Amino acid sequence: MDIKDQRLLVVSGHAADYVWRAGGTIAKYIKHGAPVKVIVLSCGVRGESNDLWKQPGQTAEKVEEIRKAESMAAAKCLGIEDIEFWGLQDYYMHLEDDALIDRLAKTIREFKPYHIITHGPIDLLNPDHDAVNKFVFKASVLAISNGVKYEGYPTSKQTRIFGFEPHQSEICDFKPEVIIDITETMEMKKAAMNCFKAQSHLIEYYGMKAFIRGNHARRISGCQDYKFAEAFTRRFPYVGDFLV
Amino acid sequence: MDIKDQRLLVVSGHAADYVWRAGGTIAKYIKHGAPVKVIVLSCGVRGESNDLWKQPGQTAEKVEEIRKAESMAAAKCLGIEDIEFWGLQDYYMHLEDDALIDRLAKTIREFKPYHIITHGPIDLLNPDHDAVNKFVFKASVLAISNGVKYEGYPTSKQTRIFGFEPHQSEICDFKPEVIIDITETMEMKKAAMNCFKAQSHLIEYYGMKAFIRGNHARRISGCQDYKFAEAFTRRFPYVGDFLV
Amino acid sequence: MDIKDQRLLVVSGHAADYVWRAGGTIAKYIKHGAPVKVIVLSCGVRGESNDLWKQPGQTAEKVEEIRKAESMAAAKCLGIEDIEFWGLQDYYMHLEDDALIDRLAKTIREFKPYHIITHGPIDLLNPDHDAVNKFVFKASVLAISNGVKYEGYPTSKQTRIFGFEPHQSEICDFKPEVIIDITETMEMKKAAMNCFKAQSHLIEYYGMKAFIRGNHARRISGCQDYKFAEAFTRRFPYVGDFLV
Amino acid sequence: MDIKDQRLLVVSGHAADYVWRAGGTIAKYIKHGAPVKVIVLSCGVRGESNDLWKQPGQTAEKVEEIRKAESMAAAKCLGIEDIEFWGLQDYYMHLEDDALIDRLAKTIREFKPYHIITHGPIDLLNPDHDAVNKFVFKASVLAISNGVKYEGYPTSKQTRIFGFEPHQSEICDFKPEVIIDITETMEMKKAAMNCFKAQSHLIEYYGMKAFIRGNHARRISGCQDYKFAEAFTRRFPYVGDFLV
Amino acid sequence: MDIKDQRLLVVSGHAADYVWRAGGTIAKYIKHGAPVKVIVLSCGVRGESNDLWKQPGQTAEKVEEIRKAESMAAAKCLGIEDIEFWGLQDYYMHLEDDALIDRLAKTIREFKPYHIITHGPIDLLNPDHDAVNKFVFKASVLAISNGVKYEGYPTSKQTRIFGFEPHQSEICDFKPEVIIDITETMEMKKAAMNCFKAQSHLIEYYGMKAFIRGNHARRISGCQDYKFAEAFTRRFPYVGDFLV
Amino acid sequence: MDIKDQRLLVVSGHAADYVWRAGGTIAKYIKHGAPVKVIVLSCGVRGESNDLWKQPGQTAEKVEEIRKAESMAAAKCLGIEDIEFWGLQDYYMHLEDDALIDRLAKTIREFKPYHIITHGPIDLLNPDHDAVNKFVFKASVLAISNGVKYEGYPTSKQTRIFGFEPHQSEICDFKPEVIIDITETMEMKKAAMNCFKAQSHLIEYYGMKAFIRGNHARRISGCQDYKFAEAFTRRFPYVGDFLV
Repeated sequence: MDIKDQRLLVVSGHAADYVWRAGGTIAKYIKHGAPVKVIVLSCGVRGESNDLWKQPGQTAEKVEEIRKAESMAAAKCLGIEDIEFWGLQDYYMHLEDDALIDRLAKTIREFKPYHIITHGPIDLLNPDHDAVNKFVFKASVLAISNGVKYEGYPTSKQTRIFGFEPHQSEICDFKPEVIIDITETMEMKKAAMNCFKAQSHLIEYYGMKAFIRGNHARRISGCQDYKFAEAFTRRFPYVGDFLV
Repeated sequence: MDIKDQRLLVVSGHAADYVWRAGGTIAKYIKHGAPVKVIVLSCGVRGESNDLWKQPGQTAEKVEEIRKAESMAAAKCLGIEDIEFWGLQDYYMHLEDDALIDRLAKTIREFKPYHIITHGPIDLLNPDHDAVNKFVFKASVLAISNGVKYEGYPTSKQTRIFGFEPHQSEICDFKPEVIIDITETMEMKKAAMNCFKAQSHLIEYYGMKAFIRGNHARRISGCQDYKFAEAFTRRFPYVGDFLV
Repeated sequence: MDIKDQRLLVVSGHAADYVWRAGGTIAKYIKHGAPVKVIVLSCGVRGESNDLWKQPGQTAEKVEEIRKAESMAAAKCLGIEDIEFWGLQDYYMHLEDDALIDRLAKTIREFKPYHIITHGPIDLLNPDHDAVNKFVFKASVLAISNGVKYEGYPTSKQTRIFGFEPHQSEICDFKPEVIIDITETMEMKKAAMNCFKAQSHLIEYYGMKAFIRGNHARRISGCQDYKFAEAFTRRFPYVGDFLV
Repeated sequence: MDIKDQRLLVVSGHAADYVWRAGGTIAKYIKHGAPVKVIVLSCGVRGESNDLWKQPGQTAEKVEEIRKAESMAAAKCLGIEDIEFWGLQDYYMHLEDDALIDRLAKTIREFKPYHIITHGPIDLLNPDHDAVNKFVFKASVLAISNGVKYEGYPTSKQTRIFGFEPHQSEICDFKPEVIIDITETMEMKKAAMNCFKAQSHLIEYYGMKAFIRGNHARRISGCQDYKFAEAFTRRFPYVGDFLV
Repeated sequence: MDIKDQRLLVVSGHAADYVWRAGGTIAKYIKHGAPVKVIVLSCGVRGESNDLWKQPGQTAEKVEEIRKAESMAAAKCLGIEDIEFWGLQDYYMHLEDDALIDRLAKTIREFKPYHIITHGPIDLLNPDHDAVNKFVFKASVLAISNGVKYEGYPTSKQTRIFGFEPHQSEICDFKPEVIIDITETMEMKKAAMNCFKAQSHLIEYYGMKAFIRGNHARRISGCQDYKFAEAFTRRFPYVGDFLV
Repeated sequence: MDIKDQRLLVVSGHAADYVWRAGGTIAKYIKHGAPVKVIVLSCGVRGESNDLWKQPGQTAEKVEEIRKAESMAAAKCLGIEDIEFWGLQDYYMHLEDDALIDRLAKTIREFKPYHIITHGPIDLLNPDHDAVNKFVFKASVLAISNGVKYEGYPTSKQTRIFGFEPHQSEICDFKPEVIIDITETMEMKKAAMNCFKAQSHLIEYYGMKAFIRGNHARRISGCQDYKFAEAFTRRFPYVGDFLV
């Protein structure tokens, strides 16, 4: 299928997750003409903004505002035009909620993604990420079920679901199943990462991760053009016409 | 890469393995113009010809001859022109052998496969299959190493290695990672399977497996055109430009 | 213990699960005189009746009615006389509910099952099945605890808990631990499956699964009488007087 | 099948393994009339006789003699009449040997075991045990293959293969799959263990193991009669007429 | 870090868990001067007091009182001075509760543990234990997050989290990662266990477990001084200056 | 135990493995006074010197010489004085060899390591590494067995065995169990890596790995002093007096 028709939905637990973990891939889809939508469930005010809270007189409202602004700036760097902030509380997220699941199911029916990228099933250090994984899967199932009726939102089709790489991959049982070359969009990813000013150690960290995944990409493909890459898991096996 | 350039090497432990486990995929590659080579390490005289041995006066020579003829007939049904029989003893195979490993490494350098399909790492019921997996991997490593010198055989490039589905998949830790639609070559696979006259129960079995994998292919892809399929594992992650 | 005393409780997430996954085993227990009770938690109106919803003017009430009637007809084919429909919503099921757990715990205390069969812990494609697994386990624990008091329902004894085979076994980490020969009840299972008229592809699918499991049963037992079989997991190890 | 017809072959890496790990089960089979044969591959002179080597002037011959005598005395305590000592070197065993594999395959064909008990696939502390597992499996495969011809030894039938519990179970990925009540033969097992005079700490250790497994047996079966037990893995799933 | 500064928090699902599973380790920390706090979430009235319920006229209030008194007596034997009983219902525990999570998070911030010991992630026989694991982890994450504000409770530092050994270790995927020698406090552990009068079989059981873990400790460390030990899992890898 | 007494043996498959994977840790042990010995089994002429082979007229002898010189220079940078080159062929190594195993067992008895670091059990991309793991383990078992007699080499004591991080950690089932802070020796490690002139991409790669592991070390320990780190697996659980 033409990349232009591979609609991509990204569901990010916190304000920066989609950038660290999939920024290069998102930018590539956009650059090649695919419609992309990003949902940021929470700005990560409580658990993912440690540095901002070191400022005296800090408030939750200000942190929320700053994080949202940073995330929007980063989105712009990646070429993302369609981004939604759902404003949920983080640490921990309450996602066992019928209304929220229905909301995401309707969004899926409306956006009709071919691929969904979200958090994988295990993050030993971050309980929100596991919850997002379950939440997105449940909504994706409701979205394709004929008997689940949402007025004005006809049933959508089975999507492919991919999992982000967690921060400490090995202790989270993360195994790369799909490695995407992001050489052509690495500069955009760097620019996007730089929007999260208070997290310079993560900017350096995820720059190196991309380099390391690029090394892996070259080694196992034999293709020397790959410089930077991002890794994902697949929820289901690949299905297609030929070996990939 | 164009399918015509995706050279495919299949290393089959016994005379019929490549048919039961990958016949539809092989036929599809050939049909679409890819060069395909099949190596049959052993005719399976000792362990994979139980029914033939029930005939009075049976000898190893006759069983070898029959199995080889059946395998060649099956290859023809699939469109395979390049097939080698290495005539090894089966049950069990002695593959920790420098000369044999060098022979396969040279074959790889000569044929220059883009993909290799062979047995996966675990078959709880068949010790030969595990041995073939290790053997092929070792040879594939030698084939790409610059310092391993075989006069007249320049180093080849990294290949992708896929694993066959074993007979009892779940107890062998087999997880489908790549499911290939074989709807268009299913009739060829059936014809090829029918060449192994003494094994009618397996013909029926692998026909059903293809149906079941077809059901899985439809369910997880959403594509209703898939009727029959074959499943494989990947030794290494997928690397590419976009999510698959 | 005599089969007649091995009371069997089956807890089925949706209207047809107990038929596809354990119909032959259930029929065999009944045929050999064991008391059997089946609980169908949900008729699967929302998520398991896709074909029925294709009819114009379809309503949830009608789908519920049709599915229940089909399930009752199937139960009859298997010889089941004791079947309950709990009428829960599916997709997704809300089973973290004290009253429901108490209800099942009381049912267990009243029926006194020797074996319970229900869904296994992982179904990567169906979130309801995982939830049923947790729900049944929790209720089974309450049922045997002396300090959990339900007026009129004395504590019952430890049961053995078995898990159904999920639809795509390998990607759900399903490993057959107990394979039951259903050769003598296969015709009953076929008749029961045929009651679910709108799902002809599944009827064929589960017929083939039974054939494939029959092949495995013969291969690993050496007993050639097995033609059809069903596979289950065990939650706990087997305990007994001799190796089995 | 009547226990009297369930012929049991035990293949023990070293002189005492069959006693520590399966002594109660072996005694029970014998007590109930089943033919039992034990093969002790090595007396464990190098690696399993640490205490004997502390005596000044000790020689390999004397250690071999002592260990064999102890093992024979233990066998007597369990009621074993058919025991063979193959006299292999231990630490480490050289079992990738055609003649040895053929010898065991012939023994299997001659003895016709219904069950085989031997070491499981992983022992993180003892390299011999892993080697024995592979060796026994290979021989069992040759034994049932029609095309493997040993003059005078007709092909035997598929056996069930069980794995011993290793010394440190959890770090060896050992999961009990079959727990056998040995209450009625525990005294015999104790007597047999006491024959290994130099290993008093192991006698106490395996007495406690039996107590602990007895606790597990009661807890998961609900049967309060079980006092002592031994645990095993199964190589293949259970196949039978009813749930166990 | 000096043991005196290694503040230890133990979160025990039921009244006796901390004694069976970590009593020797707790006593050792106290003996060596470390501050220790134990939280008993539930007295286990419903599910962990089976024997007490056999007495005619028993009531929940009396069982609660008895269990609490036993637990306090055991704590005294171990030298514990700081123990809290949170009085939650057991079987099953409702721990998905914001107020409870906040309460534990505040307790962590106040006590400032260097280590936390609690239940591991899987107990196939006891649904409360899994729930406690998730609950403690979640609270520990809130405790260290700058943006989670509890008036009067400043953010605490990252702790190390260890998991108890469950009753049937192998079927719960328990792998010992840290084995603590409790030889010097074994008598105190025995005294503490003896406070739970109605559970004599468990007293014997956990005495043997300590002996068995002592054997493992000697074997893999080479240190012959270890007689009794307790085993734990680590949630995160060890980090330090040198190999341990 | 004092670090000065924690004798460290490192067994490296190829000329640079010990540098990439453990250079900082080795340097730290030496800096703190521990005796360290490094064994390089092979210079990696065939498989680990791809760039050197690109030079016209290259020969195996020259490559061997260059690699050995580089390795010796690197050793010097780390402060290693005791390094042996065993000169084995690589790709693939033949380590199932009694004489070689005896040689390593004797070396262990002579050097008396408290810790051994070598390759872990799985490297999906490098068959030599798996073979080294088995080889070292076998020799370590022989070294501690009283009945294995080598004239002049009395039995040594149980060692702790650690596994290197493989190049692509996640697909090799590598889980960090022990993370060692190498901040104080990172410059020495960089200098050592720079000795392998033809492998600049690896120098950069392993510099980044150390940075990434440093990030993990800070995150899970809460200690902000860690800048760079190396990760290892443990073959056996940690045993000690207190939680680590």
